[in-house]
Amino acid sequence: MEFVMKPIGVIHSPFIAKDQTPIQASRSQATGLVEVYPAFAEGLQDIEGFSHIILIYAFHCSSGYSLRVKPFLDDQERGLFATRHPCRPNPIGLSVVRLLARRGNVLEIEGVDVLDGTPLLDIKPYVPDFDVRTDVKTGWYAQRSKE
Amino acid sequence: MEFVMKPIGVIHSPFIAKDQTPIQASRSQATGLVEVYPAFAEGLQDIEGFSHIILIYAFHCSSGYSLRVKPFLDDQERGLFATRHPCRPNPIGLSVVRLLARRGNVLEIEGVDVLDGTPLLDIKPYVPDFDVRTDVKTGWYAQRSKE
Repeated sequence: MEFVMKPIGVIHSPFIAKDQTPIQASRSQATGLVEVYPAFAEGLQDIEGFSHIILIYAFHCSSGYSLRVKPFLDDQERGLFATRHPCRPNPIGLSVVRLLARRGNVLEIEGVDVLDGTPLLDIKPYVPDFDVRTDVKTGWYAQRSKE
Repeated sequence: MEFVMKPIGVIHSPFIAKDQTPIQASRSQATGLVEVYPAFAEGLQDIEGFSHIILIYAFHCSSGYSLRVKPFLDDQERGLFATRHPCRPNPIGLSVVRLLARRGNVLEIEGVDVLDGTPLLDIKPYVPDFDVRTDVKTGWYAQRSKE
């Protein structure tokens, strides 16, 4: 079984090299543009009512993966699925960003953390009822985030 | 440009028909099992420290899509990308679920909202620093969620 994904657009960001790119959207104030290809633009209707959106994209610069990786925020190897490392069996990334404005098929966003030219696979509205959990434990990350 | 995604596992749930399936994980107390194929099991190390995980999966029962859809929670048509409707150009779904336990390559989860047999594409740890935003506006959904 396999699923063939084709980009619905492209994410434009200030980041052209991996080592310049913020680790996560929540740590970035950078602005960028999400260009949705005209064939899909009709699907953006009503999105301007949402202050935040979830971008789902392909980690297009990653190739191959290891099931044990050293996260950017840690000094020990961890299981890949306990990290947000970009090199994964299916190279799907997700970021929650602030939606500043929509101009036709282009979205202005804040909090971008991806490389310029990243292929966009999907956009979903960010809805706290669905996406926010409380009483959360975060394993190895909990220690690192305090440092 | 295209990206070929292959399942890394399968999600087992009590839901065998679409009309039985909860609209979102946050509205479900159902338990289920995430079976990660043995070839990828090593990547699960350290995941048991996290209370919640993000499942990324293929909406394998959906075929085709419309750029304007009537959400389950609404009575008006909305732009597809302003909804969480399962029929999308790239049929990628995501759910935040509670991780109850890990037994080898199997994860016991609570809050499952997908059909039994859903192909798993990725697992990421849920980290509020990355995934939670405050001061959020939710457009058309804000009205519907009060009803």
